[in-house]
Amino acid sequence: MAISSNSTNGCDAAVIPEDRNCQWRVAARPKGNVVLEDFAWVEEPIPRPRDGEVLLQTLYLGLAPVMRMYMLGTGTAGEKPLEIGDVIHGRGTARVMESRHPDYQVGDMVQGQMGWQTYKVSAMTEQEKFFKCPGFSLPYALCAGVLGMTGLSAWAGFIDCGKPRSGETVVISGAAGGVGSLVVQMAKIRGCRVIGIAGGDEKCAFIRDLGCEASIDYKADNVAQKLAELCPQGIDLYFDNVGGEILSTCLEQLAMYGRVVLCGSISEYTRAEPFGLTNYTRLRRVNGSMQGFFVYNHLHQWDEAMTEIATMIHDQGLRPVQDMVDGFENMPEALARLYDGSNVGVQCCRVRGEPQGEALTTDIGGQP
Amino acid sequence: MAISSNSTNGCDAAVIPEDRNCQWRVAARPKGNVVLEDFAWVEEPIPRPRDGEVLLQTLYLGLAPVMRMYMLGTGTAGEKPLEIGDVIHGRGTARVMESRHPDYQVGDMVQGQMGWQTYKVSAMTEQEKFFKCPGFSLPYALCAGVLGMTGLSAWAGFIDCGKPRSGETVVISGAAGGVGSLVVQMAKIRGCRVIGIAGGDEKCAFIRDLGCEASIDYKADNVAQKLAELCPQGIDLYFDNVGGEILSTCLEQLAMYGRVVLCGSISEYTRAEPFGLTNYTRLRRVNGSMQGFFVYNHLHQWDEAMTEIATMIHDQGLRPVQDMVDGFENMPEALARLYDGSNVGVQCCRVRGEPQGEALTTDIGGQP
Repeated sequence: MAISSNSTNGCDAAVIPEDRNCQWRVAARPKGNVVLEDFAWVEEPIPRPRDGEVLLQTLYLGLAPVMRMYMLGTGTAGEKPLEIGDVIHGRGTARVMESRHPDYQVGDMVQGQMGWQTYKVSAMTEQEKFFKCPGFSLPYALCAGVLGMTGLSAWAGFIDCGKPRSGETVVISGAAGGVGSLVVQMAKIRGCRVIGIAGGDEKCAFIRDLGCEASIDYKADNVAQKLAELCPQGIDLYFDNVGGEILSTCLEQLAMYGRVVLCGSISEYTRAEPFGLTNYTRLRRVNGSMQGFFVYNHLHQWDEAMTEIATMIHDQGLRPVQDMVDGFENMPEALARLYDGSNVGVQCCRVRGEPQGEALTTDIGGQP
Repeated sequence: MAISSNSTNGCDAAVIPEDRNCQWRVAARPKGNVVLEDFAWVEEPIPRPRDGEVLLQTLYLGLAPVMRMYMLGTGTAGEKPLEIGDVIHGRGTARVMESRHPDYQVGDMVQGQMGWQTYKVSAMTEQEKFFKCPGFSLPYALCAGVLGMTGLSAWAGFIDCGKPRSGETVVISGAAGGVGSLVVQMAKIRGCRVIGIAGGDEKCAFIRDLGCEASIDYKADNVAQKLAELCPQGIDLYFDNVGGEILSTCLEQLAMYGRVVLCGSISEYTRAEPFGLTNYTRLRRVNGSMQGFFVYNHLHQWDEAMTEIATMIHDQGLRPVQDMVDGFENMPEALARLYDGSNVGVQCCRVRGEPQGEALTTDIGGQP
């Protein structure tokens, strides 16, 4: 990783001004993993809200693999394609600093589409998908990840699409990642037998600690052979964060009526040619299914998901693992961590929040 | 098609003896489409049943794409892999000629695993999956196809796995084939808007006549462009008989929450390298699913399926289209028709039945 913040592209970490809106914009389309030259640092005056708008100050930003797609200018159903020079899309947690919007007051904590910037004026449109941070007695920092889009992804993919049943053998790839580390724990909570796939000893130890009965190190192990040993009856549910060869290997070992949930395909992001899945016909033999999902298609389930995740944290031992990078100047590095496999848990960046996150002050009665 | 029955491999069509058990066996592993040299004609004495066995005389045989896999020695979940010299697997309709089995009487009509032969002695084991021909007022010939495994495939794949809803846009590839021609009609009966894909003008006219609102000729049309025109809201349900490029094209045009049912992949059978499906990630964007099925996994639904198909024939206008080749000597040719796209409807062979099929004499009251 060649990314470092003390470079020549305009960002001097020592003097990030509080009275300016600092931004990271697309400077170039990434080739392979992102490098610092793909980003441009811009400082602007803090914008002023007009009637119907609020001024938001960024506290935490979440990072997700889709962001490289944004930078490539690829359209996604959720966000508009980016041109060179645009502020990069990114959801995070923010505090309302000034409000001329009837539904928001100064001090309100929200999460939504902030972009990679330290301030934003917003009319809180439907497109930006802002939610007030839930009133659970949990740190606000979580709203950038575990109680944000990453949590919704894990819940929507595993609980809603995967429909896990107690006693099933569940295999999860990218198990130490943002979504993966949550799904491992959700699977355990739902009574499944969990096998995790991750890269390296450290991550494998981490996912076993999270609840995996066994781990497979895809960098060192023969994945097919280990799966066959660990899942002699086949895989009931495979939660796929990586696509490519590991998806193909798991398809080959699906149990009768086995299901695959396609969540992500991180292995595809930096590949020159897309992977060709030749054994899709395997689904026929075992009456298997492969179900994809996109988190933006599940926004209507936001409240249900957040409530269940908070319950899992409070009552069922779910550990919110967030890999927190400190400092907005380090956003490019934080993003690169996703593609070189550095992150453990949900990758976030503390922009202006407290180092340990900020406790929510409202603990709504009757809710977890 | 170079197959002709007046060849030198031992079968003389003029003298197929009634007092011998005539068989087609595997002579060689097919390369590309089957050719006559892949088959060996054998005549044996008619076998005698022992206690617990019956002697069956073959009336009709059904033909299915899977048979080339059998000949290649590929194991399938349903039948044992064939060695060179083995009688080829094949299900069909037969009459009980002699019975030393408590459950069967002379004259009973059954369907099940006969193999490519004119007589068989059987203990009617679980493995052979024999069923008595249903007591509907329909010709016995149908039991080799429409009321046999082909019908079960159509029903299991489309009704049970596909879960069609009235008003949905359904696309069916291989729409003029055995399963396809049934699914087109089932989709129409279920109130769907049906687009069929087939090869050539004649087949396209045929599937429009069966109930397709529009047809796409994959040999002449730009399939992607026609689909986009015909399905501006996308495809709700794609029933895939072919795999490969057309599957990929349909995946690209799935509607939100669209489903794919994988029934067959005839385009893969004669391909040197399997097709690599690169756009499986498309399922993510639209929360789509791809569900495979194998007809042998649905045998427990046999009665339900046959009853519903018979009801469709009697009351809802389903036309049982069977492409009947006359004469057991022509079985190799009948099989080759599946891979060169010649067959229209369910491919069957009349071995010893009446040319128009035989009417069932029992019309069970209360049943259709």
